[in-house]
Amino acid sequence: MAPSQTWPESQIVSDLAALRASVPLTHCITNIVVTGFTANVLLAAGASPAMVVAFEEVAEFARIASGLLINVGTVTEPEAKAMVRAASTAQEAKTPWVLDPVAVGALTFRTQVAMQLLDYKPSVIKGNASEIMALAGAAGGGKGVDSTADSGAALSLAQSLAKRTGTVVQVTGLVDYVTDGADVVSIPGGHFYLTKVTGTGCALGALTAAFLGAGLTPVRAAVASSAVFAAAAERAAAVSTGPGSFATAFIDQLFLLGIQ
Amino acid sequence: MAPSQTWPESQIVSDLAALRASVPLTHCITNIVVTGFTANVLLAAGASPAMVVAFEEVAEFARIASGLLINVGTVTEPEAKAMVRAASTAQEAKTPWVLDPVAVGALTFRTQVAMQLLDYKPSVIKGNASEIMALAGAAGGGKGVDSTADSGAALSLAQSLAKRTGTVVQVTGLVDYVTDGADVVSIPGGHFYLTKVTGTGCALGALTAAFLGAGLTPVRAAVASSAVFAAAAERAAAVSTGPGSFATAFIDQLFLLGIQ
Amino acid sequence: MAPSQTWPESQIVSDLAALRASVPLTHCITNIVVTGFTANVLLAAGASPAMVVAFEEVAEFARIASGLLINVGTVTEPEAKAMVRAASTAQEAKTPWVLDPVAVGALTFRTQVAMQLLDYKPSVIKGNASEIMALAGAAGGGKGVDSTADSGAALSLAQSLAKRTGTVVQVTGLVDYVTDGADVVSIPGGHFYLTKVTGTGCALGALTAAFLGAGLTPVRAAVASSAVFAAAAERAAAVSTGPGSFATAFIDQLFLLGIQ
Repeated sequence: MAPSQTWPESQIVSDLAALRASVPLTHCITNIVVTGFTANVLLAAGASPAMVVAFEEVAEFARIASGLLINVGTVTEPEAKAMVRAASTAQEAKTPWVLDPVAVGALTFRTQVAMQLLDYKPSVIKGNASEIMALAGAAGGGKGVDSTADSGAALSLAQSLAKRTGTVVQVTGLVDYVTDGADVVSIPGGHFYLTKVTGTGCALGALTAAFLGAGLTPVRAAVASSAVFAAAAERAAAVSTGPGSFATAFIDQLFLLGIQ
Repeated sequence: MAPSQTWPESQIVSDLAALRASVPLTHCITNIVVTGFTANVLLAAGASPAMVVAFEEVAEFARIASGLLINVGTVTEPEAKAMVRAASTAQEAKTPWVLDPVAVGALTFRTQVAMQLLDYKPSVIKGNASEIMALAGAAGGGKGVDSTADSGAALSLAQSLAKRTGTVVQVTGLVDYVTDGADVVSIPGGHFYLTKVTGTGCALGALTAAFLGAGLTPVRAAVASSAVFAAAAERAAAVSTGPGSFATAFIDQLFLLGIQ
Repeated sequence: MAPSQTWPESQIVSDLAALRASVPLTHCITNIVVTGFTANVLLAAGASPAMVVAFEEVAEFARIASGLLINVGTVTEPEAKAMVRAASTAQEAKTPWVLDPVAVGALTFRTQVAMQLLDYKPSVIKGNASEIMALAGAAGGGKGVDSTADSGAALSLAQSLAKRTGTVVQVTGLVDYVTDGADVVSIPGGHFYLTKVTGTGCALGALTAAFLGAGLTPVRAAVASSAVFAAAAERAAAVSTGPGSFATAFIDQLFLLGIQ
């Protein structure tokens, strides 16, 4: 494992400026719990979200989108077909895309869906420690789910997963890690309240897709989204009473980041 | 094109009072991103929202509803069937209804769905400039999508669309326009933040349906919803830090409008 | 009808402490309007929400969940199949579960779905007066929907429904009632704003499922959720400007309840 690096704040500011300059059209196929919050996060950050989910439309849209997110959080059989079509088109059209394997490992059907999606070469896989370990295991890398494992163990499997699949892996937790299989960047910060608001992890994956859509490399896109979330969360927590007001302030601070 | 008129504020206040007095049961078949926000907008304004989407239920409910919204934002094949059934029943039962052709023109499948829905004579078509131009074009009126076109061009096509289909068209933008094909009413105001919160346009269409359900004419219903949104947005922006707090304050101000 | 009791506040505090100590994995199959709000309510209260809705996954998950909510608010044909599978598995695996018969009585399809679900013995049925009366009627207990009936009439039918089905019934309104068919507990309080925010009733049912998942008896789980909602709503209303800020403050106060 390469020594962990942190990322200079000046690069985060310039990455966010790049996002706002390009207003990337970000195609989201995500779960039914977080659609609204995800769209509001992307709008506040400066991207242009579009939730296009029908089998009849995903290929047409994945071609014109700048970036794509596929999140299996509430995937059903017809949605899985649309996801595969979208991923396949994205690979063919060179639209960079993010896979969020929500709860993979814990449930059989979505684990199979995620494995199938892996064939279409996501630019970034974003998940928590359990999800990344499960995906690494299912992909033949070793152990299955172990939610009690520490993030060091997850990081090691994340590196294996990244190497074997040729993708960048973004592992979320108290500290986020981004790895291309060789180097590791660590992004500390954020706030406990992020774990008490539904959809923050899902919206993070969408923001990674937006940064990809703005032309950033996979490593830089993943680091930028984690760093932007950490900064906005810290500012939001400072003016919040609880997770409700935090969620509202988080959107405000995403919008204000780099402006004031 | 008829000379543009504005609408006296006294009529807005009385329209809102009419809505609150009748508490119109507003049947919404809308996209998965904006369901919660739409319901909260309708509740705050004084209507009674009901999201009834199953093919098995839409006909039964479109008969008893006071007004209906059909929004194709995330339409899939089975949902399209339910939408056609709802629109057909609404026409037969004389339940006034609003068509929101989200992203029509940009995507083939939903453009076909929207064209099919047009056959059932919506009372109002609500869309942004691109959507209205695309629908006018697809309906045989001339040009297709042109998102760079100015709102004057959209207005002219909106009038053609209104004339040819016998509906009222509500075009949203920096200034909203409502036309029955002959007269044009313009509703200025609102706030930039409306473009940074997902679902504001979709909720506007739902509020038009609620005003129809309260017995207003199509022109008056469309003007009332645009005017109520503009007023609530201006008040909300005055107490907001960013788009997150704006969304919350917007709901508060919708509720308080005409009360304080 | 047994004389109505109220519930000592000390028990509510200890019930909430039990919930937070066990962090019950709460499986929600709910409607598309309220998914995000429901998850945020559960997170703020201290539970662990999981929206798992695919036919392929619900049985696997209903086995490992601590509690289950089934809410028919926007049920479609494929979702009805998943709900039946989840309920059947829950009964077999002894996972306690809550049925929320949203708008049953008003619509034929969902009334049939709810009747079918009743066969799998929910621990608690939670509904408003109209829904409980409709379900009692459809289940052979007498009258159908009558939204103009007072809550006394609903309570009497709620008791019949509880007796005949062997479940606990939680009736919401200005005062909430919980009955096992013999005893009745009344939970006054709450706030008008709860009726102006979408999904509060749906999230209440989810919280009942979470309390069941924490090991409480059905009566105690239903009373605890109603009492927690009443207390949080009163505190939130005291710091709110309208229903938008109330919804935000309500989440904050759920989180803070018993802490400060």
